[in-house]
Amino acid sequence: MSQRQLKLNAFLMTAGHHVAAWRHPQARADGGIQFAHFKQIAQTAERAKFDAVFFADSAAVWGAGAEQEAQSRSAQADHFEPITLLSALSAVTDHIGLIATVTTTYNEPYHLARKFASLDHLSGGRAGWNLVTSANAAEAFNFSREAHLAHADRYNRAEEFIDVVIGLWDSWDDDAFVRDKQSGRFFKPDAVHRLDHQGKHFSVRGPLNVARPVQGYPVIVQAGSSEPGKELAARTAEVIFTAQQTLADAQAFYRDVKGRLARYGRTPDQLKILPGVFPVVGRTREEAQEKYQALQDLIHPAVGLALLSGMLGGADLSGYPLDGPLPDLPESNGGKSRQHLLVELARRDKLTIRELYLRIAGARGHLTLVGSAVEVADQLQAWFENDAADGFNVMPPTLPGGLDDFIELVLPILRERGLFRTEYEGNTLRESLGLARPANRYTHKVVA
Amino acid sequence: MSQRQLKLNAFLMTAGHHVAAWRHPQARADGGIQFAHFKQIAQTAERAKFDAVFFADSAAVWGAGAEQEAQSRSAQADHFEPITLLSALSAVTDHIGLIATVTTTYNEPYHLARKFASLDHLSGGRAGWNLVTSANAAEAFNFSREAHLAHADRYNRAEEFIDVVIGLWDSWDDDAFVRDKQSGRFFKPDAVHRLDHQGKHFSVRGPLNVARPVQGYPVIVQAGSSEPGKELAARTAEVIFTAQQTLADAQAFYRDVKGRLARYGRTPDQLKILPGVFPVVGRTREEAQEKYQALQDLIHPAVGLALLSGMLGGADLSGYPLDGPLPDLPESNGGKSRQHLLVELARRDKLTIRELYLRIAGARGHLTLVGSAVEVADQLQAWFENDAADGFNVMPPTLPGGLDDFIELVLPILRERGLFRTEYEGNTLRESLGLARPANRYTHKVVA
Repeated sequence: MSQRQLKLNAFLMTAGHHVAAWRHPQARADGGIQFAHFKQIAQTAERAKFDAVFFADSAAVWGAGAEQEAQSRSAQADHFEPITLLSALSAVTDHIGLIATVTTTYNEPYHLARKFASLDHLSGGRAGWNLVTSANAAEAFNFSREAHLAHADRYNRAEEFIDVVIGLWDSWDDDAFVRDKQSGRFFKPDAVHRLDHQGKHFSVRGPLNVARPVQGYPVIVQAGSSEPGKELAARTAEVIFTAQQTLADAQAFYRDVKGRLARYGRTPDQLKILPGVFPVVGRTREEAQEKYQALQDLIHPAVGLALLSGMLGGADLSGYPLDGPLPDLPESNGGKSRQHLLVELARRDKLTIRELYLRIAGARGHLTLVGSAVEVADQLQAWFENDAADGFNVMPPTLPGGLDDFIELVLPILRERGLFRTEYEGNTLRESLGLARPANRYTHKVVA
Repeated sequence: MSQRQLKLNAFLMTAGHHVAAWRHPQARADGGIQFAHFKQIAQTAERAKFDAVFFADSAAVWGAGAEQEAQSRSAQADHFEPITLLSALSAVTDHIGLIATVTTTYNEPYHLARKFASLDHLSGGRAGWNLVTSANAAEAFNFSREAHLAHADRYNRAEEFIDVVIGLWDSWDDDAFVRDKQSGRFFKPDAVHRLDHQGKHFSVRGPLNVARPVQGYPVIVQAGSSEPGKELAARTAEVIFTAQQTLADAQAFYRDVKGRLARYGRTPDQLKILPGVFPVVGRTREEAQEKYQALQDLIHPAVGLALLSGMLGGADLSGYPLDGPLPDLPESNGGKSRQHLLVELARRDKLTIRELYLRIAGARGHLTLVGSAVEVADQLQAWFENDAADGFNVMPPTLPGGLDDFIELVLPILRERGLFRTEYEGNTLRESLGLARPANRYTHKVVA
C-alpha cells in the first residue's frame, strides 16, 4: 500500500455521544451497562475495519457537582468500567483495537502495567492505553483526597507514571520464556530485568508478573492539549486524541506537536494525530440537519448547563442569564485546554450561554459535522490532506444508529477515494496504525 | 431439591497446581498466558456444572525473594491478571461463577467496587471477590513501600475496605434507573446514595458510577484462617476457602467459624466453607499413585525449597540440610495460618525439609487425595457429611488433564450419590451457591 490512509477509531459511549442521545428513539437507553450492546457495536466496527474502539473514563459519577435535576437526566451515571469491558470484548472480536482511558492521578503504575499487559495478551496484541490526568474534582473525593492534585503536579506524576509503566513492560525479554519441559527451565535467568525505580511519586521494584506484551507495549494514546500535555505526548504518545474546532486550529496543533518530536529522536509518523469528530450524517444535508435538530430538541436546559459548567472546570453559571454572554471566569484546576477552547469558541462566534451549551451538547468541544455523506467525507479528507489530522476519533451521536450511519454512508465514499482500508493490515493494533513494535530497552541498545 | 449438595469451585492456575505441573506431558506449559487454554477449561468446568472458576493472585512475580535458579524453574512468573481474564471469560460462558482474588492491601476500594460491579453486570450476576490481605513481601516493593503492613494493620485496613466496597455497591437502589425517554428522567433522584465514608484508612464520597450489581453484591469469598481472618469472615464472608489437613482439623475450623456467625446476626447456611483439595485420581489407586509420583519426580530441589521458604513467610532455609528436620523459625509478617499449618504438619508427621516440600509441592498445604475415583469421592463425602466442609475448592494437579480426570472419574460417582447437581439452579453465582441476594441498606431496613 503506497497511499497514506485515514486511521479511524470508534469512540463509544453509553447510548451515544450526544448529551440527550439516550432519549432518541434509535438509541439503546440502557446501553452503558449492556454487554450485548457493546458486543454488537464492536463487531460492527470490526466488520467496517475501524482501527479501534475507544472508551473515555472517569472514576466518579458524572455531574457530581451538578444539581441533581441535571444529573438525574444524564445517562453517564451508569456504565461499565473500561478495562473489564474491553477484556470481555477481546473474547468476541479478532482484529479491532481496544483502547481504554485510565487516569494516572489515582492509580498505581504496577496495577496499570499489569492490566494492560494482560489485555494485550488476551487480545493477541490489540490493547491501547489512553493516558490521562484527572481533571474531575469529584474523583479526588473517591480516593481519600480533599482536592485533586494541581495541574502541574498531575503532569509531573503522569511523566513519572508512564516511565514506570513502560519500564515494567520491559521486565522480560521477548524470548524470555523458553518453557523447556526437559531441562525444567521455564525462563532464561538473564532475560528478566528488575526495574528498581525510585522517584518522587513512586518506588517500584518489579519485575512485572506478565510476559512482555504482544505489541511490545500497548499503544500509548494521549488527549492532553495543554503545554505540558503536548510535551508529554511528544515524548511518549503514539496517538493523540484532540479537540479542534477549525481547520486552521487543527493545522496549528498538528504542526506544533509533530514539530516537537525531533527533540525526542522521533519522526512525525511515529505519532498519529486524531481529532475527535461528531458526525451527523444524512442522505442529504437537510436530512442530517433534521437528525441533529431532533437530538438538540431533547436537551433539558439543566443538563446543557451542567455539561457546560463541568467542561469549564466546575464554573458556577447559575447566576447568569441563559441568553446572555459567557461571563469572565476564574481559571480552574480542571483540564486547561478544554476550558480555553470553549471560551474561545464563545468569543469567536459570539455565543450566549444557551447557544454555547447547544453547540457542545453533542461533541463536547470536538468538531461537529452535520451534512450529507459527501459533505462529511469532504471535510474529513480536507483535514487529512492538509496536515490537520492523520485520522479521526469518530464520536457517533447515538448508538448503535449513529455509527451505522457513518459506516453505511460515509465509509464507502472514503474507500472509493482510497482513503480507508478494505482489509486489516495485520493482527495487532500497531499494525493497523502503522506503528513499529518498540524494542526492549534491555536487549536492543539504540545506536546514536 | 431437598438434599444438601456439594459446592465445587475449579481453582485454576497456569498449567496446574503442582509446582512442576508445567513440565508434565499433559500440561500446557504456556497455559498461564493463553486465553484459549482458560476458555477451554472454563467451558469444560461449566459443562460439568461447577459453581465457579477461582483464581488466586499476587501483584508481584513469584519467588522474588528466591534464588533465580529456583524462580526460573517456576511457571508462576507469567500469567494473566485475574480481573481482565475473568472479564474475557464472562463473554464465552453463561452459567459458571467467576471468582477473582484481589488484595485489599494495595488497592483502592472505589476501583475495586467498580471493577467487580462491572464484572457482575458483564457476566449477568456471576462475579465473586476473594478478599485477601497481602502476605507477600515482594508486593510491597511494587507499591512504593519498604515493607508491607503488619498483620494486624492489614486486617484493620481490610475491615474498613470491605465496608467501603459494600457501601459503594449500595450506591443505587435496584430500581434507580428508570430511563424514561419521554420525561427525560434517567434515574430517580432519590434512588442514589452518597457514601460519605470517613475512616482511618479511606475517605470515599461515592456514589459508584455503576448500577447496583446484578447479585446485589458479588459473592464475598475469604481465605484467611488466622484469628482476625476468621472474625472478618464471620462478619462478611459468604464463602471461605481454607487449607485443612485432617478431618478433625477441618471439623474444628468449621465449627469455630460457623459458631461465630450468630453474633453478627447470621445463620450457618449464609457461609459456605470450602477447603482446598488437590485430587490425583486414577482408575485404580496404583494408577493415581503413579500419576502423583510422575509429578513429584519432576520437582527440582531448588524449586521445592523456594516454595517451602515462601510459604513460611520468606524463611531462609539455605543453611539447613535438606534431609534434616525443619528448624525453629522466628515468626514472620506473612500469612499466619499457613505458616502454622506447615510447622504443625512437619512436627506431626516428623518430616524432613525435603519431605515437607514434597508434601506441599502439589497442594501447598491443602488436602492431598491420591487414589481411585471411589476413594476420592468417599473422602469428599466424609468431610461433607461430617461437618467439615460444604464443598471444595478443587485444585487440579495439571491443566487441562487434571480437571478432566476429576470430571470424568469423580463427578459421576458424586452425582450417583446425589451429592452434586446435574443442572444449574439458576443464572447467578448466588443461585448456584444457595446464597440470598442481599438487600440494599438504604431501601430495606433490617427488622431486629
